[in-house]
Amino acid sequence: MPLLPEQAAEIQKQRGQSQATLRTVSLGLEDHLYTAYPILDHGFVRVIDYMGDDAAICQAARVSYGKGTKSVQNDEGLIRYLMRHWHSTPFEMCEIKLHVKLPVFVARQWIRHRTANVNEYSARYSILDREFYIPAEDALAAQSLINNQGRGASLSGEEAERVLRYLRDDAARCYDHYEEMISDDGQQGLARELARMNLPANIYTQWYWKVDLHNLLHFLRLRADSHAQYEIRIYADEICKIVADWVPFAYAAFEDYRMGGAILSSKAVTCIRRMLAGESVTQESSGMSKGEWREFEAVIRE
Amino acid sequence: MPLLPEQAAEIQKQRGQSQATLRTVSLGLEDHLYTAYPILDHGFVRVIDYMGDDAAICQAARVSYGKGTKSVQNDEGLIRYLMRHWHSTPFEMCEIKLHVKLPVFVARQWIRHRTANVNEYSARYSILDREFYIPAEDALAAQSLINNQGRGASLSGEEAERVLRYLRDDAARCYDHYEEMISDDGQQGLARELARMNLPANIYTQWYWKVDLHNLLHFLRLRADSHAQYEIRIYADEICKIVADWVPFAYAAFEDYRMGGAILSSKAVTCIRRMLAGESVTQESSGMSKGEWREFEAVIRE
Amino acid sequence: MPLLPEQAAEIQKQRGQSQATLRTVSLGLEDHLYTAYPILDHGFVRVIDYMGDDAAICQAARVSYGKGTKSVQNDEGLIRYLMRHWHSTPFEMCEIKLHVKLPVFVARQWIRHRTANVNEYSARYSILDREFYIPAEDALAAQSLINNQGRGASLSGEEAERVLRYLRDDAARCYDHYEEMISDDGQQGLARELARMNLPANIYTQWYWKVDLHNLLHFLRLRADSHAQYEIRIYADEICKIVADWVPFAYAAFEDYRMGGAILSSKAVTCIRRMLAGESVTQESSGMSKGEWREFEAVIRE
Amino acid sequence: MPLLPEQAAEIQKQRGQSQATLRTVSLGLEDHLYTAYPILDHGFVRVIDYMGDDAAICQAARVSYGKGTKSVQNDEGLIRYLMRHWHSTPFEMCEIKLHVKLPVFVARQWIRHRTANVNEYSARYSILDREFYIPAEDALAAQSLINNQGRGASLSGEEAERVLRYLRDDAARCYDHYEEMISDDGQQGLARELARMNLPANIYTQWYWKVDLHNLLHFLRLRADSHAQYEIRIYADEICKIVADWVPFAYAAFEDYRMGGAILSSKAVTCIRRMLAGESVTQESSGMSKGEWREFEAVIRE
Repeated sequence: MPLLPEQAAEIQKQRGQSQATLRTVSLGLEDHLYTAYPILDHGFVRVIDYMGDDAAICQAARVSYGKGTKSVQNDEGLIRYLMRHWHSTPFEMCEIKLHVKLPVFVARQWIRHRTANVNEYSARYSILDREFYIPAEDALAAQSLINNQGRGASLSGEEAERVLRYLRDDAARCYDHYEEMISDDGQQGLARELARMNLPANIYTQWYWKVDLHNLLHFLRLRADSHAQYEIRIYADEICKIVADWVPFAYAAFEDYRMGGAILSSKAVTCIRRMLAGESVTQESSGMSKGEWREFEAVIRE
Repeated sequence: MPLLPEQAAEIQKQRGQSQATLRTVSLGLEDHLYTAYPILDHGFVRVIDYMGDDAAICQAARVSYGKGTKSVQNDEGLIRYLMRHWHSTPFEMCEIKLHVKLPVFVARQWIRHRTANVNEYSARYSILDREFYIPAEDALAAQSLINNQGRGASLSGEEAERVLRYLRDDAARCYDHYEEMISDDGQQGLARELARMNLPANIYTQWYWKVDLHNLLHFLRLRADSHAQYEIRIYADEICKIVADWVPFAYAAFEDYRMGGAILSSKAVTCIRRMLAGESVTQESSGMSKGEWREFEAVIRE
Repeated sequence: MPLLPEQAAEIQKQRGQSQATLRTVSLGLEDHLYTAYPILDHGFVRVIDYMGDDAAICQAARVSYGKGTKSVQNDEGLIRYLMRHWHSTPFEMCEIKLHVKLPVFVARQWIRHRTANVNEYSARYSILDREFYIPAEDALAAQSLINNQGRGASLSGEEAERVLRYLRDDAARCYDHYEEMISDDGQQGLARELARMNLPANIYTQWYWKVDLHNLLHFLRLRADSHAQYEIRIYADEICKIVADWVPFAYAAFEDYRMGGAILSSKAVTCIRRMLAGESVTQESSGMSKGEWREFEAVIRE
Repeated sequence: MPLLPEQAAEIQKQRGQSQATLRTVSLGLEDHLYTAYPILDHGFVRVIDYMGDDAAICQAARVSYGKGTKSVQNDEGLIRYLMRHWHSTPFEMCEIKLHVKLPVFVARQWIRHRTANVNEYSARYSILDREFYIPAEDALAAQSLINNQGRGASLSGEEAERVLRYLRDDAARCYDHYEEMISDDGQQGLARELARMNLPANIYTQWYWKVDLHNLLHFLRLRADSHAQYEIRIYADEICKIVADWVPFAYAAFEDYRMGGAILSSKAVTCIRRMLAGESVTQESSGMSKGEWREFEAVIRE
């Protein structure tokens, strides 16, 4: 359980304080506000604030004086049109702020998305907690034999046990020494900004992360993808559920045009035309490399 | 008066629809929401939405679970500290969305601030209104004789009259021809995306502009400055008033450390030390150029 | 002809001054350096500087010590892989700086691409030249009847003549008055920053524009597209030729995967699978809207 | 020594291959190209490529056809003017690409500067080397007693020894286990993307980092500052030397107006005016907090 009782109490308090506003309200997202959704063994995602909803996307696309909604049906069609034609600026008119607790090696991938605002818990200023990510049994994957950047089956038996023992023991020992080094009990105490260097990358950090909807969807497309590392994908999956409740039309269009669709090269388009015309096309006659052909087949065959 | 009756009615309707939210609410900004503040002869600024307040800045700086407010006094001190030491990321945690109507030549300066989200009324898709900025008498300034990029005194008499006549007549004629060219009455009608090229730069456009507080303050520092062109400064001045009601602590710190302060070169710091030690320093003995010395004197003399 | 004799002489001089460098050199791009390629009636594009080449993309992807080239074949394969899988950061390692002269209404579209560096000729500080874009006969297009944002056939006869007369006369008159207003001959002279507001949007401006290859390709995908306005597309087309000589592998991959390919929704993927399985699919049975189906058919039929 | 013999040979080879170019060449920077300047115990900075020089800044500011240089004196004055008045866009017209090897905890600070392009060595794809930052004796600082975010004096004696032993032993053991876990010798072998989580934050990583001069100077202002953590400041200091040789006028202006100068609040300006008028001002009569007054005194007293 990632929260201390006083943290849970603060969240409870936040959820109890309703106020009147003249702003656009997304009822779907209000239900999620402040609640910490547990992820991995000590992590979480929770929504701190947001701006806009589906109607706000249309309002900006139309640069309108009022709410901008002509009709619900109309809004859905416009949003699908904008998504299909890569009109990204109206989606930038919605914004969300998250509080995320995550292992450092996940944070290092996450931060590569530059178009976002971040405030991270400072290990120069403060002392980190003794919390490390230790994979569950079924997430303890072997190196893929065919993909340098991927995973194979789960480890098992003695090997799995040994890995878990190393991860647990090394984390514990490194943290013991971290605590001992910064202690000023009978000694000077090493500077925090130095002592933190002894902590392995599975220690948890946390940050406030604020991003507009367009850039969030771009993040989700890459990180909720099956090729993303499991430990960041599980955060992306949770955020997907939140976004689906926040901007249902935009999220459905995103699923249809980005997540569920496919991007074809001009070679692939030519192949499809030939196949629909009755021709039998093989990798050799396609003009594609083996890797491209494999990816192409995954698109056209169920 | 920049608004049509139906536009004013839509704004009135927006201001009448209060809803409950669990989010942070800035009471000071709620008062401004949707109201169109008139600027120049046909322009306006109005707040469409916002995220965060002074407490949200502190909450992000502390990466806290709850509201993050320790005490009001504490928050003010923290915000001043953050502003003084150029910790910009906590200010990025607040966001505002404006609807602005402004002359095209002002929009061209404004858009140079890249870290913002923009949706502009499209003159490819829609027909622009017949609204042009014609300066008031006291804004009809002569070219500065000492500053290539500045203004001198106001024009007067026959010269002023002639300028106003040119501006009015040319705008009217160009718009007449714009309308005539796009008309499909008895002719094909020129494409809108082409016809718009006949419209002078004092025609009004409008956009939705969304920006975080850090980048907004940067915009205000440059555009509410006395060296900014009057026609954009008057927008910045109006936005300053809005920000002061939205995040009073942050705005006060901004006024003290950015707007009202001064940036000194190392040469200038050396001069001040010499002067405080009793030495009489002149431009010649300062090591500064004439331009630098003039700016230095403006800082140290009232 | 867009260049004055002294400008042409300066360009000639730049092309004559070769120096030794240890940096990566793209021979294909050296041939283009400084030459002004004419576009529209008074515009141009010319390359001022660049950084990197195809090998530099691979070098960054591999974070290598040396040149990073394993073999030319290897580099091409890697670049195609990176493009196919949306690995954008290696493409950001190349940079190009252009000097562009373009009508103001084109500049207003162009500047919407925010991830670039820009220095524009200042009409606050300087006096603009009397140069206006007047479309050639075949670019004088009617408004599209089916697409609010598009063009139909060219205007002809009396209508075409009238449009050209309006554009020419209004530009000339507005510029005459601009000159008259800023003149200090026997009068104070209006400030330049004000007088410019009388100039229509077909006046030419110019800027230095610097952008990395990833963002340039994104610009080209949108602006060299058949739906882009002709007056910006013709700039994009010229830049495409330059990029093809600069980074031939990257440009070929861009053409195959971005320009020439297609993006399919999940509905479209399902339809293709059904069609390849022998089913006859119609718009009604596809689950797509009429607009989507029309775009889908354009992909699968030649 | 951070380089392997074959790496040193590759660098040597790069420095031996001069080619002709028509581009702007900075002789001062050519001398640095590719050379790896050692930093900390295993790190380095080396320049891979660059674009522009002092003259290129002026050329962009003037949007000129030729080299843009009127005279060397003229250029220096213009650059000082641009720096003094925060005209940042001309400085964005220069670009530099660095190859940096640095400890992960330094990389985590560095990456917070978002306006740059980065390609980092991938620990998902590749195996990291056994190289850890172990502070030199005089960099083994105690926690500051007055500043939560700072350092005090160096540790010594038994405490220093113990800290060094912990850092060395924990790094060695964690790396041993990392190697053992990814080994496929007689076992499946843990996925690299998982095994890396066992490595502490003082392990070295490396990346290609590309940034424009304006954003680089901003980075240097914050990271070459005396309040920056020593382990990143030493990188910034080395880069300062490189920039001084690359764009000497811009760097001198930066030193005078940014690094060596001071930013005064409006309260501080008022105090200076009062003091120059002969008044004796104290913290109490200044209106400043104790912290502000302490910083103010550091500016006006040598």
